[in-house]
Amino acid sequence: MRLSRYFLPILKETPKEAEIVSHRLMLRAGMIRQQSAGIYSWLPLGLKVLRKIERIVEEEQARAGAIQLLMPTIQSADLWRESGRYDAYGKEMLRITDRHERDMLYGPTNEEMITEIFRSYVRSYKDLPLNLYHIQWKFRDEVRPRFGIMRGREFLMKDAYSFDLDQERAVESYNRMFVAYLRTYKRMGLTAIPMRAETGPIGGDLSHEFIVLADTGESEVYCHSDYLTKDTPGEEVDFDDDLTPIVQDWTSHYAATEDIVDKAEFEASVPEDKRIVARGIEVGQTFYFGTKYSEPMGAKVATTEGTEVPVHMGSYGVGVSRLLGALIEANHDDNGIIWPKSVAPFHVGLINLKPGDELTDTTSESLYSKLEAAGIEVLYDDTDTRAGAKFATMDLIGLPFQVVAGPRGLRDGLLEVKERSTGEKEMLTPEATLNKLTAALTD
Amino acid sequence: MRLSRYFLPILKETPKEAEIVSHRLMLRAGMIRQQSAGIYSWLPLGLKVLRKIERIVEEEQARAGAIQLLMPTIQSADLWRESGRYDAYGKEMLRITDRHERDMLYGPTNEEMITEIFRSYVRSYKDLPLNLYHIQWKFRDEVRPRFGIMRGREFLMKDAYSFDLDQERAVESYNRMFVAYLRTYKRMGLTAIPMRAETGPIGGDLSHEFIVLADTGESEVYCHSDYLTKDTPGEEVDFDDDLTPIVQDWTSHYAATEDIVDKAEFEASVPEDKRIVARGIEVGQTFYFGTKYSEPMGAKVATTEGTEVPVHMGSYGVGVSRLLGALIEANHDDNGIIWPKSVAPFHVGLINLKPGDELTDTTSESLYSKLEAAGIEVLYDDTDTRAGAKFATMDLIGLPFQVVAGPRGLRDGLLEVKERSTGEKEMLTPEATLNKLTAALTD
Repeated sequence: MRLSRYFLPILKETPKEAEIVSHRLMLRAGMIRQQSAGIYSWLPLGLKVLRKIERIVEEEQARAGAIQLLMPTIQSADLWRESGRYDAYGKEMLRITDRHERDMLYGPTNEEMITEIFRSYVRSYKDLPLNLYHIQWKFRDEVRPRFGIMRGREFLMKDAYSFDLDQERAVESYNRMFVAYLRTYKRMGLTAIPMRAETGPIGGDLSHEFIVLADTGESEVYCHSDYLTKDTPGEEVDFDDDLTPIVQDWTSHYAATEDIVDKAEFEASVPEDKRIVARGIEVGQTFYFGTKYSEPMGAKVATTEGTEVPVHMGSYGVGVSRLLGALIEANHDDNGIIWPKSVAPFHVGLINLKPGDELTDTTSESLYSKLEAAGIEVLYDDTDTRAGAKFATMDLIGLPFQVVAGPRGLRDGLLEVKERSTGEKEMLTPEATLNKLTAALTD
Repeated sequence: MRLSRYFLPILKETPKEAEIVSHRLMLRAGMIRQQSAGIYSWLPLGLKVLRKIERIVEEEQARAGAIQLLMPTIQSADLWRESGRYDAYGKEMLRITDRHERDMLYGPTNEEMITEIFRSYVRSYKDLPLNLYHIQWKFRDEVRPRFGIMRGREFLMKDAYSFDLDQERAVESYNRMFVAYLRTYKRMGLTAIPMRAETGPIGGDLSHEFIVLADTGESEVYCHSDYLTKDTPGEEVDFDDDLTPIVQDWTSHYAATEDIVDKAEFEASVPEDKRIVARGIEVGQTFYFGTKYSEPMGAKVATTEGTEVPVHMGSYGVGVSRLLGALIEANHDDNGIIWPKSVAPFHVGLINLKPGDELTDTTSESLYSKLEAAGIEVLYDDTDTRAGAKFATMDLIGLPFQVVAGPRGLRDGLLEVKERSTGEKEMLTPEATLNKLTAALTD
């Protein structure tokens, strides 16, 4: 993408309203724009990262056997009356009346609707296990939206729903999502620790919050430091296998959020030098809640014996949009964002230091087309701006590599290649640059 | 994808509420489910087609230089008060009050919000031309939603917005979208005819509706039959060139919808044997409306002379979700849907006629993995259902090719390969099957 044809509205001033670094950097880097309290537009650079996060989530959901569908944002209140949550949900639910005076709402979550879909089509244990998920915008009318997209009102969530014949099989489904989550976050370069958690308005008796440690996290967490160095299941993991050993390994040490922590237990079970008390950002939550929705809503299946039983369900959320915030909280320095390769909006920022100069133009254009042909995404700064501003913008938006084509270096046939995360620079020929970037950025 | 692990809730009965064939077939093929009047869930098969349509739209928008962002669904009423449309829009706008008693709405379109984004960041003619688009759910509270997703309340639309210094350049931007639309529909196998149209609530003085002819279309259209055989610009079209000749060619003959038709002009300008009077489905609309929004909302840019002028705008919609309906209206027979290759949810339906039989199992599994490795998407029916039902389901869901692995054919080492669109069948070895499908389905 040529910057001259892109829309990247960098802010020079640090926005006053932004309390945390991820919010500040997303505004400054032209990734988001606030439209109303807690409601954001995703500007081109922000949307590109959002889509990359979605793709990773989708790939790992598919690997774990979940099937994607898409439920609408607007739901009928009647569904929520069936489960009893319409009155219970409170003011966070955005309630709407349509032109025919019917009570509707903007879905804050989808347990009711997916249960309705399930009961409409599925009749037999033979169709189980089943795990259906979608990635859809949700609305929760937070009384005080803050921290940018970290606690917005309109936000993008992946929510999966599992259906099983009994509790034992439901726990197998739970374990599949648990392992999928470990992999999902790891692929984004995040260490997310599964912690025992309150089940809140979803209900149920088995639940984990997946927490990324960050100073600006919304809650205090207590955990064993071994979680920070634990191995994540690789691509070879077979989701048809019994995943209990992995889940046991990842729940063997103490880890709990402040809502539920038992400090005596924490101190008794974790040696002093292994105790972590820190702030954490919740990036996902898993629930097993049995028949909490299937029973009132009549979602039943026939067993092998032919009797009908309410199906056992779980739900599994990933905060897709808030992950951008968590990623930036975990990956930045004073100059800006440092994107992990897997979610970077572009892989390479190519700076033409002197557009109009034949040598810098030819070299830049040639490298640009070769990198793109190799499947590497390049943001090519072909604009007529001063060098300092170009460097600052590239550092701010945090692409993994920067390549500078300047008249001085090119006199010796060399480009400057900088790795954003380390700051290391080297002077390379265009050919060596292409080889280095291809090796570093393609699989 | 193995059918045994998929969620494809085929309906045996034809749903009574469905008046038109696309609605009936989408319900029967397990593509959508109605959740409320005019509000649908996209079941896995439907979502796959929706995503393929989105990808084509995105690719052609990018080719034409439009930049993707994403605006939220919920908007502030204040924005619409600035343009004067809040009161004018009527009951189709879903109006919402949040917990702080602020007036909000579910966006039916985004002229106001994109103008707000533009005026916040863009100051100079140097940043023009600019074309920003998104693909986002919209809500229009239709008094009588009908025809399934063809006239729903919550629907997915691509809307692009162009910004130019003056009318002449704005028409260039208009032409780029016009040509992008011709290509977009053609890639889906549709012939969409650009027709002069009313501008309606968007306003403006240059507008075309892109219409697909279909008996179940919502409006009557009048056009020259040469449009049905006209060449569509190929991949070689350069969007930096002057596109006027292409637009002129595609607007040289009479074509108008019933809202605007001048029958005397139609009859005077079109020879009798070339006149088409038919029903049509609108799948897109383009508008140039000048300064209608930029002026009241103060979206101005500095000219080369340093004076400030309101920017000239256009907007360009594609009905992404309704395109599924239009595609099915144009591509079906008595047995079901016939997907064009470019938007088919899977490319091949592979039927194992006798799961449990070693020969059909081994042959099917081997072909399944080879096709998938070749990048061909396969729905592999590995279920224990009777043959007739399997054939009927495959015809209903309309994948371009069907491959049948039955014990009888395999005794001679042969599979049956059927092309859905022609019904032609041939008996081929697994190797010849793989070669044929690879040649037909990969580029």
